[in-house]
Amino acid sequence: MNIQIPDLPTAADVFAAAERLHGRIHRTPLMTSSGLNEWLGAEIYFKCEHLQKVGAFKARGAANAVLQLPPGTDMVATHSSGNHGAALAWAAAERGLRCTVVMPDNAPLAKKTAVAAYGAEIRYCAPTLAAREATLAELVDQTGAHVVPPFDDARIIAGQGTVAQEIVGQCRERGFSPDLVVAPVGGGGLLAGIGLAMCALAPEVTVLGAEPAGADDAQRSFRSGVRVTDQVPDTIADGLRTTLGLRNFAVIRERVSDIVTVSEEGILLALQLLWGRTKQMVEPSAAVGLAAVMEHGSRFRNKRVVVVLSGGNMDFAVVAGLLAER
Amino acid sequence: MNIQIPDLPTAADVFAAAERLHGRIHRTPLMTSSGLNEWLGAEIYFKCEHLQKVGAFKARGAANAVLQLPPGTDMVATHSSGNHGAALAWAAAERGLRCTVVMPDNAPLAKKTAVAAYGAEIRYCAPTLAAREATLAELVDQTGAHVVPPFDDARIIAGQGTVAQEIVGQCRERGFSPDLVVAPVGGGGLLAGIGLAMCALAPEVTVLGAEPAGADDAQRSFRSGVRVTDQVPDTIADGLRTTLGLRNFAVIRERVSDIVTVSEEGILLALQLLWGRTKQMVEPSAAVGLAAVMEHGSRFRNKRVVVVLSGGNMDFAVVAGLLAER
Repeated sequence: MNIQIPDLPTAADVFAAAERLHGRIHRTPLMTSSGLNEWLGAEIYFKCEHLQKVGAFKARGAANAVLQLPPGTDMVATHSSGNHGAALAWAAAERGLRCTVVMPDNAPLAKKTAVAAYGAEIRYCAPTLAAREATLAELVDQTGAHVVPPFDDARIIAGQGTVAQEIVGQCRERGFSPDLVVAPVGGGGLLAGIGLAMCALAPEVTVLGAEPAGADDAQRSFRSGVRVTDQVPDTIADGLRTTLGLRNFAVIRERVSDIVTVSEEGILLALQLLWGRTKQMVEPSAAVGLAAVMEHGSRFRNKRVVVVLSGGNMDFAVVAGLLAER
Repeated sequence: MNIQIPDLPTAADVFAAAERLHGRIHRTPLMTSSGLNEWLGAEIYFKCEHLQKVGAFKARGAANAVLQLPPGTDMVATHSSGNHGAALAWAAAERGLRCTVVMPDNAPLAKKTAVAAYGAEIRYCAPTLAAREATLAELVDQTGAHVVPPFDDARIIAGQGTVAQEIVGQCRERGFSPDLVVAPVGGGGLLAGIGLAMCALAPEVTVLGAEPAGADDAQRSFRSGVRVTDQVPDTIADGLRTTLGLRNFAVIRERVSDIVTVSEEGILLALQLLWGRTKQMVEPSAAVGLAAVMEHGSRFRNKRVVVVLSGGNMDFAVVAGLLAER
């Protein structure tokens, strides 16, 4: 049976998004650490999306969506426990639009603060997907707000994919082509976007997804060919607890080489190395790519690997406390 | 009474150091945050010395000293509770020299680990200046090691000053000249070096030192004209607890515009902003410059200000605990 999925994004959508976003987002740096390279036996280039607007790659997709709203739209809305909410709030404020974000009441304080700081309204709900969807539906009924979903959306996938176009350009400027690109996968917006762009721009590059073993729906979906929708996530990487989206899965199964999982211990160790060695304040979800390089060493040995650091927003004292307990 | 101080460094020594260090250290980036600029009403450029080799500007002075050792030297030594020890260990290892660092047994774990990781030997002592000096003297007697002091040394001051030459070049590349440069002051190696270089390269730029009110010997020395040597420091900024050196004071009183102090509360707030907004993992001592911009706002309003982020090495669980208590 072949179900037709509407609105699948293409590589052309990624390139159009890059044009649209030019000058509105940062071209984030590629960073290296000679100490880490020596220790890991690989040449690692960190793509610093924690230095992106709003501190996460999510600014790309949100801005791309907001720049393509139906004429007359004056309000956007979404549900999010994390960076997508802040990104949409920022993108809406840049265009002078109103924005409401439905957030579970247990969302990290740093993420609530960010949404409020960009001038969006927060509507709190119980911390379940059902409550989030019901609250958002009610809001749309009341206000007519245009919904910008966090990942299962062609505009979002295309926007996130612009990071890959930058990676290809930055590697060329330095005179090399990467062997692999590793990106974290939660809902799959980032990984699907990278897969689309890489297949078009540099098909010889292996694109790998990395996710916590405690939220391994993407790997199970990828390997079985059937999208898993019933996981109970258990991981410190709060950005990766979501389940792979429908469009995201459709793109990823065609455009990505494999998905690997990493342990919680590996995520914490990678986080500690990133904080200590690169001095970059990344959030736990962003450490999953480096954890994959450490836990699946044979795939990366002597290779040029771009690891996407996806974001840097967290309640620092909480995460540092977890590290201190190790 | 005018006491003659031997071996005072000159601006020419800074320029010679820059030649000597070329290719051996990083040209660290200048970083900006539009959010912080808007909030503070100033145009701030962070000079990222936490991204320097060994995670601190101290690599500059240590390497400059090690590259000018008397012929036949095969071992260096110092006493340090912090970044100078790691920097000397690194610089010695780069030249194939042995290195021993005398450290107080209560030094931060991260700093002990760094010294050991660069292959130096650690000799522990009681946490007093007298114990440190006695242990180092004994070591020199036993081994004939060449001592590289942490700050009161012409080679060290000249090496640290190379950061100012980079700042001037990087600002010119971006088409502007800074109004002020703010650097933390502990022993005074960094501030003296910057003062020397700035007076020669861009004398119109105001050079300011910043230090914790709980370790304000530099300000008291600067304003009274008599070097204070008897302070009991009380500050979270562990890199700034030392007392201003003799040569350092002699240079600073001639080449620096003023020294301002900041509160502990201000240091913690600045640290939190740096971690949260710039996503840079800097240590408490490095936050003192931004704290000065916040607490002495009228000096900086609408100005172009280079703030030197001096280092990024700390036990982050300890620092996170302090932030959590606020």
